[in-house]
Amino acid sequence: MQHITRHDLDKLPSRYRAHMINSLSGFKSANLLATADEQGNTNLAMISSVVHLGAEPPLIGFIMRPNTVPRHSLDNIRQTGVFTLNHVHPGMLQPAHQSAAKYEREISEFDATGLTPMYHESFHAPAVTESRVRIGLQLLEIVPIKHNGTEMVIAEICWLNIPANIQQEDGYLDIEEAGSVSVSGLDSYHTTVRINRLAYPKP
Amino acid sequence: MQHITRHDLDKLPSRYRAHMINSLSGFKSANLLATADEQGNTNLAMISSVVHLGAEPPLIGFIMRPNTVPRHSLDNIRQTGVFTLNHVHPGMLQPAHQSAAKYEREISEFDATGLTPMYHESFHAPAVTESRVRIGLQLLEIVPIKHNGTEMVIAEICWLNIPANIQQEDGYLDIEEAGSVSVSGLDSYHTTVRINRLAYPKP
Repeated sequence: MQHITRHDLDKLPSRYRAHMINSLSGFKSANLLATADEQGNTNLAMISSVVHLGAEPPLIGFIMRPNTVPRHSLDNIRQTGVFTLNHVHPGMLQPAHQSAAKYEREISEFDATGLTPMYHESFHAPAVTESRVRIGLQLLEIVPIKHNGTEMVIAEICWLNIPANIQQEDGYLDIEEAGSVSVSGLDSYHTTVRINRLAYPKP
Repeated sequence: MQHITRHDLDKLPSRYRAHMINSLSGFKSANLLATADEQGNTNLAMISSVVHLGAEPPLIGFIMRPNTVPRHSLDNIRQTGVFTLNHVHPGMLQPAHQSAAKYEREISEFDATGLTPMYHESFHAPAVTESRVRIGLQLLEIVPIKHNGTEMVIAEICWLNIPANIQQEDGYLDIEEAGSVSVSGLDSYHTTVRINRLAYPKP
């Protein structure tokens, strides 16, 4: 085992360190964040920072980096109060990853990547047709994280789309069966192989 | 595809809904949170909410649920300002999962599960010997999330231990090679199979 100190980390080149530190939190979720501005112009961005916040009420959060691509998305969320998260499966991985490129504001990543927007009734934000797990969310709060200028977006689940066959008897959704991929670091994508579901632990 | 509304979700039994909503964020990291109180009594808790916050400075966050087991851990973090996160691999999965049981405060989950504490010089919090990726962290801030009583713990990386062979030329740490497992829902554990590392996307 290597022991690496904070002093060692601080001496590393910025991109090298970014790859390294991004790998340390462990496996991450791969979600497409889809939004539209008030005029209905759509935006799509791949994010790997979605985190479960609670089931009652059903809350999800994600971290928005300072001054990076998805700020167009954040502007849209501030304007309209809604967005969708869409799981990524291997068949849509290449266009999903491509959505993270630094496109100009007036370019929709749907057009640029070939992914297809779809709409649920009066819900303003588009979802991603190709995705097999889609979640519609309403913004609750944007919490600034003062230490590095990131922000945590906190939102409440309004609706969801899931394949009928992935829900198990106790409510668990088999996202492996849905093909949802996992991310490590900045750019490594992984499918999963279930070890097991483990029983509720008791002392 | 099934369309499920918020109204549908609100009618579900609490445990069923917890399994369901916990699956929705996508794949999660599996980390053992290790702490000690001022007297050196150790505590260990499995968490799946660790999130990358930034590389410069190197920051990691996690969500602490209200009134659940790891509050002993949170008390220790408040007291001492430090903790470690330790990736879980399949060979230590059973004791790692068991650490989430509701043990009394005076029982160390290290003793209860058979996992082994180790210490780095003067760093007060223990790390987990069996783990292959260990991170020492210093508390920066605990941010209350008012919508459901959870809290986000924000911390800065002080040191890390990694196997010498998992770092690639550009800094990326191959956590799949280290055997780090991924979690979905409350209790499903997965190994991973790399699809690919994808090139930095350009418009």
